[in-house]
Amino acid sequence: MGQTIGDIATALGLEAVGDLSLVIRRPALPGEAGAEDLALAMEKKYARTLSGTAARAAVLWPEADWQDLGLEAAIFVPRPRYAMAGLTQAFAPPSHLPTAIHPTAVIDPTADLPPDAAVGPYAVIGPDVRIGQGARIDAHVSIAAGTRIGPGAVLNAGVRIGPRVTIGTRFVAQANAVIGADGFSHVTPERSAVEAAKETGATRDAVQTTAFVRIASLGSVTIGDDVEVGAGSTIDRGTVTETRIGHGSKIDNLVQIGHNVQVGEACLLCGQCGIAGSTTLGDRVVLGGQVGLADHLKIGSDVLIAASSGVGTNIPPGSIFMGTPAAKREVFVQQVTLTRRLPWLFEAVERLQKAVSKDETNG
Amino acid sequence: MGQTIGDIATALGLEAVGDLSLVIRRPALPGEAGAEDLALAMEKKYARTLSGTAARAAVLWPEADWQDLGLEAAIFVPRPRYAMAGLTQAFAPPSHLPTAIHPTAVIDPTADLPPDAAVGPYAVIGPDVRIGQGARIDAHVSIAAGTRIGPGAVLNAGVRIGPRVTIGTRFVAQANAVIGADGFSHVTPERSAVEAAKETGATRDAVQTTAFVRIASLGSVTIGDDVEVGAGSTIDRGTVTETRIGHGSKIDNLVQIGHNVQVGEACLLCGQCGIAGSTTLGDRVVLGGQVGLADHLKIGSDVLIAASSGVGTNIPPGSIFMGTPAAKREVFVQQVTLTRRLPWLFEAVERLQKAVSKDETNG
Amino acid sequence: MGQTIGDIATALGLEAVGDLSLVIRRPALPGEAGAEDLALAMEKKYARTLSGTAARAAVLWPEADWQDLGLEAAIFVPRPRYAMAGLTQAFAPPSHLPTAIHPTAVIDPTADLPPDAAVGPYAVIGPDVRIGQGARIDAHVSIAAGTRIGPGAVLNAGVRIGPRVTIGTRFVAQANAVIGADGFSHVTPERSAVEAAKETGATRDAVQTTAFVRIASLGSVTIGDDVEVGAGSTIDRGTVTETRIGHGSKIDNLVQIGHNVQVGEACLLCGQCGIAGSTTLGDRVVLGGQVGLADHLKIGSDVLIAASSGVGTNIPPGSIFMGTPAAKREVFVQQVTLTRRLPWLFEAVERLQKAVSKDETNG
Repeated sequence: MGQTIGDIATALGLEAVGDLSLVIRRPALPGEAGAEDLALAMEKKYARTLSGTAARAAVLWPEADWQDLGLEAAIFVPRPRYAMAGLTQAFAPPSHLPTAIHPTAVIDPTADLPPDAAVGPYAVIGPDVRIGQGARIDAHVSIAAGTRIGPGAVLNAGVRIGPRVTIGTRFVAQANAVIGADGFSHVTPERSAVEAAKETGATRDAVQTTAFVRIASLGSVTIGDDVEVGAGSTIDRGTVTETRIGHGSKIDNLVQIGHNVQVGEACLLCGQCGIAGSTTLGDRVVLGGQVGLADHLKIGSDVLIAASSGVGTNIPPGSIFMGTPAAKREVFVQQVTLTRRLPWLFEAVERLQKAVSKDETNG
Repeated sequence: MGQTIGDIATALGLEAVGDLSLVIRRPALPGEAGAEDLALAMEKKYARTLSGTAARAAVLWPEADWQDLGLEAAIFVPRPRYAMAGLTQAFAPPSHLPTAIHPTAVIDPTADLPPDAAVGPYAVIGPDVRIGQGARIDAHVSIAAGTRIGPGAVLNAGVRIGPRVTIGTRFVAQANAVIGADGFSHVTPERSAVEAAKETGATRDAVQTTAFVRIASLGSVTIGDDVEVGAGSTIDRGTVTETRIGHGSKIDNLVQIGHNVQVGEACLLCGQCGIAGSTTLGDRVVLGGQVGLADHLKIGSDVLIAASSGVGTNIPPGSIFMGTPAAKREVFVQQVTLTRRLPWLFEAVERLQKAVSKDETNG
Repeated sequence: MGQTIGDIATALGLEAVGDLSLVIRRPALPGEAGAEDLALAMEKKYARTLSGTAARAAVLWPEADWQDLGLEAAIFVPRPRYAMAGLTQAFAPPSHLPTAIHPTAVIDPTADLPPDAAVGPYAVIGPDVRIGQGARIDAHVSIAAGTRIGPGAVLNAGVRIGPRVTIGTRFVAQANAVIGADGFSHVTPERSAVEAAKETGATRDAVQTTAFVRIASLGSVTIGDDVEVGAGSTIDRGTVTETRIGHGSKIDNLVQIGHNVQVGEACLLCGQCGIAGSTTLGDRVVLGGQVGLADHLKIGSDVLIAASSGVGTNIPPGSIFMGTPAAKREVFVQQVTLTRRLPWLFEAVERLQKAVSKDETNG
């Protein structure tokens, strides 16, 4: 499994120096690197850590003195994070995904799979499903009737894809993700507690009933190209239109996306964030971990919402928002700063009260 | 699959006008409606959107002038959201759920299934399970020993139902929901960090130990009639009593319900909310998305807790609470308003200090 | 299934009085206890509740007068919560887990299972997997290539274990937990929105691109002894090193643990909390429900973070933190208290302004 420094550098289009024939087995953190590892010391701060190891080769920051660091070979990277993509792919271990159709897979005779499809044990593929070339579908995946998935899909174990979902190319779903469940949409014949709270300010003005009726999900989910959905994440079907995820958007684990939500292109939705029904995101929106968006909002393109924020209002394009209720970054930072100074403020006011009261007594 | 305007209106008990024999294929958003669609323009604000489309029929607000909108037929709805339930059900596509018992389903000989049960591929039903009429159980569902499920159940793919769970009629579980896992209840022989923090204020006063011992879950989960549990949601078993979900309560995706929790009737628990162990909810409680309730709380009936709130105290019936730590709505709104005015307050106090200091200097 | 009071007390090492031959069937809450139940009245506050029931035996606080409470027998416990562990285990119902290898389990010929392994229907165990003695693996579990699991493991239905995971002894995974998914790590060739926000304060300074490239997860997950992972929780693999969970740590339901995270020993991670990539926790750390930790943080040993908190900074050992952004408990409590007093402060300042303005007018 070893590769030479020269081959790695060539494959990644990077500059290498020293003994280009040196064979390394895997990349490693600077403090954990052994003699056969490629130490990842891409920032100057790792220089000292590196010098204490047996590493003979490293990936270094551009101006590093590799010989002074005691190395026999080095690769230089101008943009460390991006270099990690190529480096980790170069050393990726063999895939654990299936390579052929397992005899226990239950594939409906009307499903259309490509000749090279790989389907793991006990996967279930329903009627009228169409799947593109190169799909790797792991054990226990289920795909319901009428779903279309483009070429190059990777569906890890236990992924659930509901009916009539449409997915583009190179889709990745991590284990136990659920795409295309029914939307959470239940109505009452008369005014509900939520409606009463909005209209009269009191939940008691609702008509008390247990008679919720489901609004069915006639729509489904449409997902663009190069989308990834994380482990355990859930995306509900739309009511009369589609729930949509745009090209290139990446969704982390345990993220919830409600019915009718529209996510633009190249968005990053971090772990455990949630988007309530019918909210729309522009392109390149970043939601930090555990961010919550209320329903029916419009979030503009290039918006970044910091982790742990709760958003109840529309957000204009290009904004950075934080907090609950979320505010512009500079407003939020000021609020936090001033809140920390409240003890001083209370004391100042009490001192002023005494001073003024004394003035009045004296005056 | 088309239906006439007249038939739809009759089925839903609504008033229709114009060409009642006009056949439509599906409901559609006002801006997306084509010539064969039923445009959903149930509020006046959609009038302009509608006029730009090819729609020939629409669902309209009561006083709408349908002919002026260029329509050939219309249905009027007094309560739009409720009408959506009937409309979407009228056009619901054929179900993707199984219609018979698949030969690969593993059903214990002591399990009692009705003659009309439908069980998908690779579902596993354990000993002493009893399931009511009309159940549709999708692929890869597992149901553990001793569980009882009432008539009309829908269990989507990958649902996990633990041992000795009792469920009423018309239960719906979305894909990968987990009902009846072990409660999260681990104790230490001596004072733990959480106990020390409560008692002495310092986690360091705990006896340092790794020796957690599990409190077993002897109880199970009891669920009433007409309950729905969303995709990926988890409900733990009780310790010596049951974790209970009351009739008509609806639970969204990725919701966590701890051991011994008691949820009343007709509650709505929105996406990603969490209820810690032994907390009790009255009837018609609404928890917004990502709401967190601490353990051992009592939340009264008709309480509404806004999205993103964290609750650490009991809440009296009929209240609307918000924020973390959650407070009454009017208190929370005032706090948010005043916090936004803090910059003014700090400046005012600084001006006062100067004025008073000058007075004193002058005085 | 009944047991005598004497046998129970002996098994748990507790003191018993009265009719030690009395047979009871199960423990019960004080208000729900019948004649054959063991009422759990371990605190004085339950005395009145108990007296209204048919209970003939109870577990009582040390100084209780059991005869005055109308009981025929009693067991005394010095530490109620800990006694619950033994009591519930003594009455635990028979396990629903499999007792043998089901013929439908797909076990790769290169996998190494012990002679006493129990594997449920449709479980899938990949190549080069090694599993220790006494493992009970329920239906629909999948274990990918190269994974090692120590003796005594319990894997509930639908658990997903990814490739090359290493797990110690007595591991418990609740249903649908996912261990070893790909890390959420996507980079852009040029400056991304998050980087731009940090560097220039504006997401618009990013190079707009949809071209995310995945950083592969070469590492896997290493889990110590006596660890439990809750239903639906997700733990991602590391990038070049391992994601690690230390001995004795317990993880509740729907918890998300990102790539490269290091969790120490005997930590408690409550429901729906989330830890972003590369963050490190010491030993005995407690995260309350829905706590969020940002990436690359260092959280010291014996830290307790209250439920609903969002943490963006390192936390020193032994601290108790609360709020978003999280602060030391005493700081947070003061902030909450003072924020509640803001209405008074605003009024005080307005009164001062009037008084000072009058002074100046008079002066």
